[in-house]
Amino acid sequence: MNGTTPAPFTADDHRDRMARAVRQAAEAGLAGLLVAPGPDLTWLTGYTPTAETERLTLLVLAPERDPVLVVPTLEAPDAERAPGAPALTLRDWTDGKDPYAATATLLDPAGRYGISDNTWALHLLGLQRALPGTSYASLTEALPMLRAVKDPAELALLAAAGGAADAAFEEIRTVPFAGRRESDVAADLAALLLRYGHSRVDFTIVAAGPNGADPHHEAGDRVIAHGDMVVLDFGGLKDGYGSDTSRTVHVGEPTDEERRVHDLVRAAQEAGFRAVRPGAACQDVDRAARAVIADAGHGEHFIHRTGHGIGVTTHEPPYMVEGEERPLVPGMCFSVEPGVYLPGRFGVRIEDIVAVTGDGGRRLNNTARDMVIVD
Amino acid sequence: MNGTTPAPFTADDHRDRMARAVRQAAEAGLAGLLVAPGPDLTWLTGYTPTAETERLTLLVLAPERDPVLVVPTLEAPDAERAPGAPALTLRDWTDGKDPYAATATLLDPAGRYGISDNTWALHLLGLQRALPGTSYASLTEALPMLRAVKDPAELALLAAAGGAADAAFEEIRTVPFAGRRESDVAADLAALLLRYGHSRVDFTIVAAGPNGADPHHEAGDRVIAHGDMVVLDFGGLKDGYGSDTSRTVHVGEPTDEERRVHDLVRAAQEAGFRAVRPGAACQDVDRAARAVIADAGHGEHFIHRTGHGIGVTTHEPPYMVEGEERPLVPGMCFSVEPGVYLPGRFGVRIEDIVAVTGDGGRRLNNTARDMVIVD
Repeated sequence: MNGTTPAPFTADDHRDRMARAVRQAAEAGLAGLLVAPGPDLTWLTGYTPTAETERLTLLVLAPERDPVLVVPTLEAPDAERAPGAPALTLRDWTDGKDPYAATATLLDPAGRYGISDNTWALHLLGLQRALPGTSYASLTEALPMLRAVKDPAELALLAAAGGAADAAFEEIRTVPFAGRRESDVAADLAALLLRYGHSRVDFTIVAAGPNGADPHHEAGDRVIAHGDMVVLDFGGLKDGYGSDTSRTVHVGEPTDEERRVHDLVRAAQEAGFRAVRPGAACQDVDRAARAVIADAGHGEHFIHRTGHGIGVTTHEPPYMVEGEERPLVPGMCFSVEPGVYLPGRFGVRIEDIVAVTGDGGRRLNNTARDMVIVD
Repeated sequence: MNGTTPAPFTADDHRDRMARAVRQAAEAGLAGLLVAPGPDLTWLTGYTPTAETERLTLLVLAPERDPVLVVPTLEAPDAERAPGAPALTLRDWTDGKDPYAATATLLDPAGRYGISDNTWALHLLGLQRALPGTSYASLTEALPMLRAVKDPAELALLAAAGGAADAAFEEIRTVPFAGRRESDVAADLAALLLRYGHSRVDFTIVAAGPNGADPHHEAGDRVIAHGDMVVLDFGGLKDGYGSDTSRTVHVGEPTDEERRVHDLVRAAQEAGFRAVRPGAACQDVDRAARAVIADAGHGEHFIHRTGHGIGVTTHEPPYMVEGEERPLVPGMCFSVEPGVYLPGRFGVRIEDIVAVTGDGGRRLNNTARDMVIVD
């Protein structure tokens, strides 16, 4: 079950995206791009095969030739129905044939190609064997910003996904927490995301008490207790575009310390948000949020980067992390999600998706950022 | 949301599997095995990260050293809870550090490694850059049968998954077909698989009339009509192990031709099943089924291989395909699923999972294989 609803883009949209990708590849000194099933292929062609398998499906983009999609014969009818199919040529291969040899005839035997990050090693090794003179760079390395700048239609879809996640939060804050398992609340969250239009739920983190100190704890058997801080972090895809938001709630009245840590993370999140503007470096967003937490003596308790991009996936470039010096550009869209994690005790994380505008940032999540008390 | 329920295996089970994998790697002349998140990692360690991302998680198995799991620091607490964790050493790396350089210290700089098929190209390229003297073979190429022979506990789980899929078929045959969309029946099938204990639905193909002639058609908006043949092909994971079965039903009375084609596919499926025995080659199963269809003049209408393995995935080696000369071994488990596809008209496919026994095969799907008439 691949619940991805295709985004409402036309063959012309996909033709434009593929042409832009080829231009960027040429500018980067690449002979072309090779794109396996996954978010890059979905974005470029609108084609999302049922499953990623050992059968090679590969989009070949190169200057001065039409895009070619190599597909298993079995899957050709599905590929023909993809929104971007009119903008490309299908070349199918049947079980038992060598798809790498067939693909090799489309490539420059001495070329350097960008290849989608999530292409299976099986397929990369097949290409390297068929054409030992080729070399490869991951798409994230070669063209990290290929999908990073969203057009207005994409921003509208991201805003709608954010709105749906916000609606889910407004409702989850009214359900009972104390006495129920984390996994029960997580199931409620998943159902709410679906009810508000998501086609796919990617994660529903419900991390209560000490579990909140593990940023990637999902949701387990822990029965939520009165007095627990509870980190909620959830998202998925709606109409092909992602949502991802976090709020930290408290069951009953918090202690002074809990309130202080929550206020600190809220201030850090605000500082990160205010650092968003065209021309700032990605790392500036991380630095701004981190400085607030470090100044309060909790630097060692903020153990992850401040944010990640979002688009046709819930997790992609650009990354708001120390060392990422690329500039923010209007249309980029990413999370700002600092946190403080006190091992064995509790954690706090506050996260909004933020889009870069002409002169700053716009939040695509807009629920209250003060601490919500739940029952 | 990764709905995979961990299979009920212990740290000792995982220690044994890892030791067996290392032995097989050494026998194949490899310096070791590198395993990214996915079915191989799940099988070897019981660890299934929430998501496969650009952050490197990699199991390093090599002779004469303990297994090491390289994990992002953020995900280390999850990894520590995996059933196989007591049998391995975690080595974590934090955002901003180079995980390939860290992994390289564990590897022989001139070694040849088996690497899991679905490892991201991003990660393989990172390893190739960090250690240019290493070389790689995909796990399917190097150790294709690593997970192919199931132990009794695994066979029991596969049989239970097959039984649950059969229960779903027994119920779906009683629902109304005519006048409903393929996607409605597919939703019913998915709900039934979940109700009968599946944690994840991988596919629910409902292909009516001419759609049945496309072996990979899923389920669309076509309203099923009286007189349609309908191919049903569905499966997923139950307790960590897969199901996959196909039956072709008919809405109302079939024509003589429809009945003839169905009988033909049934005979081919029976012939494929009867070819299953220890020592036979995988391709013998394909040949046996294909011969029946070719002899009836429909060879060109059977456009895919006869079967694929099943285990912690619904689609894995061994493949029942011409050219696959490896012998069947007791404990192997795979589909036998011939089909006939008449373009623009209809298709028929009949599929059971079959386990190789000491002297033949045992079907793990046991619903009626004669044509079922639905309403």
